[in-house]
Amino acid sequence: MKGCQIIVPRPYEVKIEEFEIDEKSIGPEDILIETMYTMISPGTELSIYTALDPGVYDFKSWCHYPFRPGYIAVGKVIAKGSNVTRVNIDDVIYCFSNHASIAKIPKHSFYLKAPLDIDKKLILLTRLATIGLTSIRVSSVTPGNIVVVIGLGLVGNFAAQLFQIAGGKTIGVDLSNKRLELARKAGIAYILNPSNCSVKEKVLELTNGKGADIAVDAVGDSRVVLQAAELVRKMGEVIILGTPRASYKTNITQLLRMVHLNWITLKGALEWCFPLYKTFGSKYSYEENSLYIWQLLKEKKLYTEKFITHIIQPKDFKEAYEGLLNKKDEYLGVVVDWREIQY
Amino acid sequence: MKGCQIIVPRPYEVKIEEFEIDEKSIGPEDILIETMYTMISPGTELSIYTALDPGVYDFKSWCHYPFRPGYIAVGKVIAKGSNVTRVNIDDVIYCFSNHASIAKIPKHSFYLKAPLDIDKKLILLTRLATIGLTSIRVSSVTPGNIVVVIGLGLVGNFAAQLFQIAGGKTIGVDLSNKRLELARKAGIAYILNPSNCSVKEKVLELTNGKGADIAVDAVGDSRVVLQAAELVRKMGEVIILGTPRASYKTNITQLLRMVHLNWITLKGALEWCFPLYKTFGSKYSYEENSLYIWQLLKEKKLYTEKFITHIIQPKDFKEAYEGLLNKKDEYLGVVVDWREIQY
Repeated sequence: MKGCQIIVPRPYEVKIEEFEIDEKSIGPEDILIETMYTMISPGTELSIYTALDPGVYDFKSWCHYPFRPGYIAVGKVIAKGSNVTRVNIDDVIYCFSNHASIAKIPKHSFYLKAPLDIDKKLILLTRLATIGLTSIRVSSVTPGNIVVVIGLGLVGNFAAQLFQIAGGKTIGVDLSNKRLELARKAGIAYILNPSNCSVKEKVLELTNGKGADIAVDAVGDSRVVLQAAELVRKMGEVIILGTPRASYKTNITQLLRMVHLNWITLKGALEWCFPLYKTFGSKYSYEENSLYIWQLLKEKKLYTEKFITHIIQPKDFKEAYEGLLNKKDEYLGVVVDWREIQY
Repeated sequence: MKGCQIIVPRPYEVKIEEFEIDEKSIGPEDILIETMYTMISPGTELSIYTALDPGVYDFKSWCHYPFRPGYIAVGKVIAKGSNVTRVNIDDVIYCFSNHASIAKIPKHSFYLKAPLDIDKKLILLTRLATIGLTSIRVSSVTPGNIVVVIGLGLVGNFAAQLFQIAGGKTIGVDLSNKRLELARKAGIAYILNPSNCSVKEKVLELTNGKGADIAVDAVGDSRVVLQAAELVRKMGEVIILGTPRASYKTNITQLLRMVHLNWITLKGALEWCFPLYKTFGSKYSYEENSLYIWQLLKEKKLYTEKFITHIIQPKDFKEAYEGLLNKKDEYLGVVVDWREIQY
């Protein structure tokens, strides 16, 4: 069976490539899907597109060139192995798949039957919301806490909303006024643009000089982590939610002194630290996190209006990457529509 | 009333200075002591003696020159304010006082009646043990954990012992074979000298390739913190027990990536984050920590043999500082005997 997929062969290049899946290669635990929609995950995908991630040139790395990007998809099951019991042919599933018109989802990957009462394109946002949720899960947030979230892309915006659902009050920080405005619409208590004000002064003002209880780096930038450490109170928490990628040479003692002297805790929040499915002995899983996000979406407790800014055809992929990279005010959630691709 | 005290006027200089305490200046909550012994706290005191701490040239800093070093003392109460009820004249107390023959201990400082059944010089070790204890208190150590403690001065040695009392198994790391030998005598499970072996390889070997559960920097050096982060398992903890002082310029993203990708927690452990006395709403205090250390000393559960390597006269202060700085194999615990000073 023939399909097509997106490939990033080298920095700043994107191409569409045909490929073939032999239906005999579907193992007893695998399923085959016809993709309806995929979504671009800006942080990770752009770090590979721009070669910011050092792994792109390392053949041992999961993200080396040529790279098949993408890992959020909604699709319809068109074939399944004999042992698959969780889904049936024609079921629509939410899964971690790449940008491709068809895909084999192996046993060790993740998929869940999609809820019928949520828009298929909105379901794609689940992944970005569960990434955001990781920072809440590792934090020790408690009602009344002031939480600064730096970076209000989709992951940061969801984190900001979820911290409020956990009883916190969020201060959202971003350089894009559009993103700040969206955060405000999503109910984020305070929004700050560092180009207009001193974030540190404002945070101190909003916390009676104490500092925030928690600060989250949702950018994935070492300088943001340093800034976050300056914003938290004694015994506060700094959570690294974005993956720090760009090298940044500085006096590391400055950060470590703050951690020591203010008894700060620095926590890494990586989504992959949850098991995929409910597992005996593990408190949370991807599965439970996803189901929780769906519950919030159904109850209209998560704001997602205008989160999807573009619905594109596969041929417009490069334009979308460039837009996400350079027009942060315009581009936020980009959905790829695979339904009309013909062979 | 006349006394004498140690002064560090500038880097690598020590002098003895006379001073006067007007007995009328003893407030209703203060006490006056005649010092029996003080002890040198090598980390902090040497960082001021060598001007490693940037605060020595900053008049707003607690440690600017000329500096009166010292903060562990045992002394006899010779006067007290009318409101003091916790001690009586002639009581021997353990307190935070500087290197001086007499001292006024104000209300907001810390003192406790010394236990009668512990050697007065051993009582001085309490402070270094409670500093070590801070790292155990902030950690989430649980029985069976493998804990690496890097730096086996008195604070590190006590931390290593206390982690074992908490059910952990400690790997002690130091460049001094004498200190490693002392750790071995204190019952530390494994000892490693980085000049003979790769600490990382050894830790992986001792943990079946998993890495340690917890790694503690008991040196107070940014490079040690970086090393500690390399030694811990996924979801492990790195605890900054020593105060990082020396600037160290490096690519900070390396550490932050590890924290993010391995879901590591970095915790600051500063002794001052405990209140001095039992306080409603606070789990621990200096007072309780000190009483716990005394209990362990009485039960002979803390090894302290040969921890006090020198008992000096105030005049030999500079020699002791130089010894602690340059002869780490010989100098460990230095007690200053103030009992025979005449005026």
